[in-house]
This record gives sequence, structure tokens and C-alpha cells, in this order.
Amino acid sequence: MTIPNLVNAFESIIGTAHVLVSDSDKAPFLVEWRDKFKGATPMVLRPGSTAEVAECVKLAAQHGLKVVPQGGNTGLVGGQIPNPDGSEIVLSLSRLNKIRHIDPEGYTMVVDAGITLQAIHDAAEKHDRLFPLTLASQGSCEIGGNIATNAGGTAVLSYGNTRDLVLGLEVVLANGEVWEGLRTLRKDNTGYDLKQIFIGSEGTLGIITGASLKLYPAPASVEVALVALDSPAKALSLFSLAKSHAGNMLTGFELMPQSGMQFVCEHMEQSRYPFEEQHPWYVLIEISAGTKDIDIASLTETIFTEAFEADLLRDGLLAQSKAQAADFWRLRHGLSEAQKFEGGSIKHDVSVPVAKVPEFLEEAIAAVKEAVPGCRPVPFGHMGDGNIHFNITQPKGADKAEYLAKWDDVNRVVHGIVASYNGSISAEHGIGILKRDLLAEVKSETEMNMMRSIKAALDPTNMFNPGRVL
Amino acid sequence: MTIPNLVNAFESIIGTAHVLVSDSDKAPFLVEWRDKFKGATPMVLRPGSTAEVAECVKLAAQHGLKVVPQGGNTGLVGGQIPNPDGSEIVLSLSRLNKIRHIDPEGYTMVVDAGITLQAIHDAAEKHDRLFPLTLASQGSCEIGGNIATNAGGTAVLSYGNTRDLVLGLEVVLANGEVWEGLRTLRKDNTGYDLKQIFIGSEGTLGIITGASLKLYPAPASVEVALVALDSPAKALSLFSLAKSHAGNMLTGFELMPQSGMQFVCEHMEQSRYPFEEQHPWYVLIEISAGTKDIDIASLTETIFTEAFEADLLRDGLLAQSKAQAADFWRLRHGLSEAQKFEGGSIKHDVSVPVAKVPEFLEEAIAAVKEAVPGCRPVPFGHMGDGNIHFNITQPKGADKAEYLAKWDDVNRVVHGIVASYNGSISAEHGIGILKRDLLAEVKSETEMNMMRSIKAALDPTNMFNPGRVL
Repeated sequence: MTIPNLVNAFESIIGTAHVLVSDSDKAPFLVEWRDKFKGATPMVLRPGSTAEVAECVKLAAQHGLKVVPQGGNTGLVGGQIPNPDGSEIVLSLSRLNKIRHIDPEGYTMVVDAGITLQAIHDAAEKHDRLFPLTLASQGSCEIGGNIATNAGGTAVLSYGNTRDLVLGLEVVLANGEVWEGLRTLRKDNTGYDLKQIFIGSEGTLGIITGASLKLYPAPASVEVALVALDSPAKALSLFSLAKSHAGNMLTGFELMPQSGMQFVCEHMEQSRYPFEEQHPWYVLIEISAGTKDIDIASLTETIFTEAFEADLLRDGLLAQSKAQAADFWRLRHGLSEAQKFEGGSIKHDVSVPVAKVPEFLEEAIAAVKEAVPGCRPVPFGHMGDGNIHFNITQPKGADKAEYLAKWDDVNRVVHGIVASYNGSISAEHGIGILKRDLLAEVKSETEMNMMRSIKAALDPTNMFNPGRVL
Repeated sequence: MTIPNLVNAFESIIGTAHVLVSDSDKAPFLVEWRDKFKGATPMVLRPGSTAEVAECVKLAAQHGLKVVPQGGNTGLVGGQIPNPDGSEIVLSLSRLNKIRHIDPEGYTMVVDAGITLQAIHDAAEKHDRLFPLTLASQGSCEIGGNIATNAGGTAVLSYGNTRDLVLGLEVVLANGEVWEGLRTLRKDNTGYDLKQIFIGSEGTLGIITGASLKLYPAPASVEVALVALDSPAKALSLFSLAKSHAGNMLTGFELMPQSGMQFVCEHMEQSRYPFEEQHPWYVLIEISAGTKDIDIASLTETIFTEAFEADLLRDGLLAQSKAQAADFWRLRHGLSEAQKFEGGSIKHDVSVPVAKVPEFLEEAIAAVKEAVPGCRPVPFGHMGDGNIHFNITQPKGADKAEYLAKWDDVNRVVHGIVASYNGSISAEHGIGILKRDLLAEVKSETEMNMMRSIKAALDPTNMFNPGRVL
């Protein structure tokens, strides 16, 4: 069938308005915000229901079309962008954007895949509940994409990754059937836990159209502090100290370097530097309690007192209001975007065992400075999970393209060090296109073959997101 | 190859002493403690290392032998017992019983699959850590079996099922290769999360030989209370009340009926009834805190005070010592075994949404009393997870065999009610042989086909635990 005929066929399923073919209509779906991946496609499909997704998949399968599912287009590894050769169609889930059901008593919510994370937060809050997944991109990312990539974020320490927050899924399979797996049970050992296979599979095994999610009590009290320290080693000691007092109530522990703090305060509106002096490292700490019975203010005070006594801190600020807490978090959440203003940035999303973070940082910073003299490392992130976004901004005044051409070489240096700590080359962003070749390098042939056999079992014609992950 | 030749071949891999062929040697592996499943086998293999397991699997594959992996033989659905026709060999993991590595700072432990759950508890405790999985059978069950069945137990409320406690696995695959997946990272999004496929797959996809596990801080303080109540509805209100004060520190909430309490106190050594009067229902509550900063004694007092004020309780006892806390837990853990002394018991392991437990119980108790006049329902278990072991003891003086012949009919009644609440017919025990036919009844053909395709992808010759689950 010719492209115009195919367009007509899809239009008859989902309506003329929802098959995008003009360049201007398609443009937002073909590039991601870091400009690293640019694609082309004959059409973007915007179905409005699970049944329409299934019909689109059936039609695509009939004609051997390859399908790239897309949520909020915030992915960082190219998984949601079609190939530049225009051989793939994009299927956007954004019109599936409803909350289907909230059960505050049962602490569950059932949603469409295309609803934004922020909309889920807002809906939970209305019922005095918390959906804990928290990302800088939460205003635009969609839960289907969060699930497909097993998103992490800043609350993993206490609540786990996205995988830990999903109770059930609805998925359109490669044969066009709909798997109705929207359970809300806390315990269910009836056969293989199929949802686990789709979580983190980056759209390569099926199209997630709905999800049932775990909710938590809305925090009754939250303390947010920003502290300045000498080194990641002191940050690690602070982490142990905070954890020993706050336990699971330590809900955030985010490391930031001086370089990143400067970039944010210089380039991001609404962000101003909160300390009087400059410091080499910072940590944002959040402690929160789900019930009113726990006095986290005094708990936080205990941690601060002991940390100063143990000489772990250079300075520290405890947020005195919700607005100030939001200011502190804005410094942290601005870190990714602020780097754009300083030129090219070579990025890594790695994890190592938590206790090894300081050693890893010392080694990796020295190695990249040697590899690219003048480069400016901006390692930041979820220290309490061992997950560091090891980004390296180009030397001042260097040519951006020339610098970014070193991407693979610098990756090799950093990932080599990660491997020596038995770490991960993709802690939370996934594989997509960006790290596909790398995956085969770091995994055994046995493991690659297991993944290939799962892929072949669920998507035998390689229709969904071909060439991503595997 | 004849059986004697095969025995020789296996002996050359794992040693003569570890291929069991005599009836007396094989006997303990061929029956489970409830006497529901009895099997036969030409031999029981007891390999002593992962490499030996892999060699045994290769040899078995060469000769088309079917293999039933077995851990501590505590499973309740027949998954670990070979068929009565003697067509399957048993592979016991019990000699793989070492702790490989403990990292108290990183809160992880790496173990062999055949180590008992109790040995893991003890090792963690030595380092002031907790491995939270807690089962009545923990002295004999083995972690490989716990993982293969995604065991639940009495601490799920706060710590999750076994799935939530596993960071990595080592698995011998159907082709005899060893998948080295023993990671200890908190975040790792490098391709499909393959360990999830094996967790809860009941030995049908591969043989788990090692696992890396999450540890938690040892509780700094624990409060255990036993309360008496009028009804499950009041127990549900008490659950909401306790949860609103204790949040995630509510680590246990176990419902027990009068019938079960009587059986335990009458038949189990070391168990005596702790109240002065009889009551219709009981709940065991455990509240624990990982840090010393939280005063759970006053928290517990608050809950008790409010519960009495709200007229939720008939009576209540707060354990005054560790010994008394252990006594209370012994009453709960004795419930399964105590039923044996009262004759036949028809069992269900079901879950419904937590808020629906009272309605479910009322309806199901009435239905089974109508189906089998004089029967004695003993529904008990993990009310906070919505998981009830809906067991029904035979009428007094009835013929045991005649009563047990009604198993399927009674199942149909109870599972029909479970279905009306969108519940699960196997919340934590799994499918095994016992519920295999039932599985196909309650799952869609789409879902069954997905499971079959996963099975075919990882075990194409149907070598591992054939006829279990699928």
C-alpha cells in the first residue's frame, strides 16, 4: 500500500485530525529537547483509546510497518524518536490522558498511559495521597513512558523505581490483542508476573496503554535542607548518619558539585545562590513522614547537630517555608537544563554501589580531565541510590561539535571505571539507541541471547521500536 | 541410556554419594508435609555447586530428562514434587547452602540458593541487619524456593514480597549456560530486567542457584500486640487507624479467627490462650522502627487508646517482653499446622482489595457453610495485604477422605466469590500442580499465550518442571 493509502486507512480508524502528516505537525515528535536525536516519519498517529491503539497496531502489522511508541518525548536515549530514514511511524499515546479510577482507601489509582506525571501527582494530592515518582520533567513526561523506561528520579531512596510503583498494566501486543493486566492487588502469584517484562522494556515488546499504580499517604511533614561540604566522602558519611536517624523517612539525598550550582544560579531564572561563600560540593536532603506522630523537625535537628559535630558540614540551610524548600529543589532540578548554556555536554547515567560513589567520582573526574584538558565535570544526582549523572561540560570557548565528537571516547573512559566497580552504564535512563551498541559490550552473550529470545517471543516480527535496546 | 547408566553418568559429575537412588534416601524428597502430593523418581541429584548444577542440566537435556528443582520442600502447591509416574528427576539445591558475601554498609547479601531462610536471618542479624522475609517455615524453606515462588509471609505490609527483596540472580538455563545476574545495584536500567522473569516462575524457566538480596536496618524497637475484636470489619477499621499513625512502621497485621486460635491452643505445644474470655476474632499487630529516634511505644499507646475509644476492641494485650512477643507470634505461626489435628482441611490462598476483606469473608464463610454443613472455616492471614488463607476444616467426626473429595467443589464456590472482587486465586503460594487447571480458567487466552511464549523462549524442550503453572 502506498503511503497516502496507508494514511487513509489509519484516518478511518482514528479520524483525519489525528493522523499527522505535515512537516509542521510532525516536527514536535521528531526531535528531543537535547537535540541529540532527530528523526523522520511518514506519519504520527494519535489514537484516542486502547481499542484504537490496537486497531492501529493490527493495521501496521498487516503492512509490515515499524512502530515507535511515544509518550511525553522526554527520553534521553533516543528510544522515542523514529529513525532518520523515515522508515518508522510514530504512535503517540498523549490523547490517552485520563485518570480512570482512584481508590484512596486502597491506595491505588488506574490511569491511561498518556497522562502526565504531574497530572497524576495533582489527582493524588486531591485525595491526600502521594504518587512518589518525582522527575525534573514531570510536567511533560507521561506515565506510559515512565513505566516503559522504569524511570527513577529523586524519590527512589524511599519509594523505589517506577517498577516498584506499578501494580498492573494494560498493553497492546504485537498481534494487536490487548492484555488486560490492570490488577490492583498487593499480592498475586498467579503465573508469571508479565507486567515486569514490559516495565523497562522501552517500547520494544508492546505498547502500554494503561496502568494501575500504588499510592502512599501524603507526607504529613517535610523538611528540606541544603548543605555545603568538602567532598563526596563527607557526603557519604552524612548519608550514613542521616539514614541511621531517619531510616526510610530519608526521602531525598542529592549531590551537586560547585560547577553545577554555578551554572544553575547563572543561567536559570528564579534561581539564586543561597549561601554566602562558595563551596566545593552540596547536598540537598529531604526528610518526610507520612504520619503526624513523628517529629521530623527534631530528627532533622539531631542529624544537623551530629553532622556539624563530626565536622561533615561547611554550612547548612534548613528551609523555613514551602517556598524556600521549592527554591532548594529548583536548584537541583535546574542542573540538567543549565548545562545547555555552557556548550556541549557529554553525559553518563551510571550507578555504582553507594559506598563506592566517592572513590568512583575521584577516579572518573581525574580520568576525564586527563582525556579532555579543560573540560568541566558536573557530576550530580541520586547519591543515596549510587546513581550519578556524570556529565562533562566542554572546556570554555571550545568548539561544541568538536567536543561532542569525543562522546564515545569519553564514554569509554568513564564506563571502564564504572565496570571496575561492577556498576551500571545506565542506571535510570535506559538504553534506547544511544547505548545499544554499548549494551552488547557490557552484557554476556548469554544475557543478550535471553533478551533476544524474549523479544522474539513477544514481538516476532520486530515491529515495536526496532533497533532500540537490542 | 538406561537408568543405571544415567545414574553412573550423574555420579561422575557430582559424586556417588550425591545421586540418591534407594527408596529410603529418596523418600524425603517425594512427599510434602501436608501429604497432598506424592511422587516417584528414578533419582534425586544433589549437586554441590553452580557448575555441577549446570553440568547436570546439560546431561539431562542430552537425554531428554525432565527436571524438578527442589529447595526446602515446603511448597504448598506440588511444584517441587515429581510426578507419581517416575518420569522426572529431582534436583535438590540444598547442598548450595553458603553465604557468599555480606556488605552491611551497602545493605546487601549474596547467597547460594539452597541456604535456609533462617540462616539468612541469622547472618544478617550478626551484622545488625534485617532480611525481612518471614514465614512459618523459615527453618526449613530455602531462599531459592522463596524466590522461585515469590514468597509472601508476614512482613509484606512493610517490606514487600520476595520479589521486592531481590537485587540479582544467578540461574542455570535450559541450555546449561549460567546466567550471571548477581548484581547488587539499587538502580540498573540496562535492558530487560531478566531476574523478574524467574522470580515467581516456580522452577519452570531455569534453576536459581544464587541470589543477591536487599538488607534493612535491624529494628531498633519492636512492639507486638494481640487484640480481640468483634468482626473483620472492626479489624479493617483498626488497620486504617494503625496505618494512619504508624505508616510504614506497621510491619505486621495478621487476622485470626476464634476457631484457629482454639486449634492452636489445644494442639500446639508451647501455646496457651492469653485472654480470659473467648472472642470471635483476633489480630496480631507488629510495629517496628529501624531507628532509635522514633518512640513506637507511645505511638502504639496512641493507637490502642484511640481504638478503645472508637469501640474497635474487646480486649488487648501488649507484649511486655521479647518472650511474650514470641508467644503471640507462635499463636499465629501455629495456625497452619494446628489444623491437621482436626482432620481434613480444604485450603485457599486468596487475595482481594484490602478494603473488601470483611465483605469477602462474610460472603465466603456463609457460602461454604451452606456447601458443606458443619464445616469449620478457619480464615486467617495477612489482612493488611488483602491476603486470606481461607481454610475450611472438616465437620467434627466427618470422614476425612470423603470431605477432601469436595476440594474442587468448595474451591469453585470460594474462587467464584474471589473473582467477583477482582481478587487472586493464589496470593502467595503459587500455582504448581494444584492450581494449574484453575489458572487457565481465570486467565484470558491472551495472557496464557503470553506465558506459554515466555516458557517456550526460555525452556523450548519443556525440561524444567513440566506441567507446573502452565
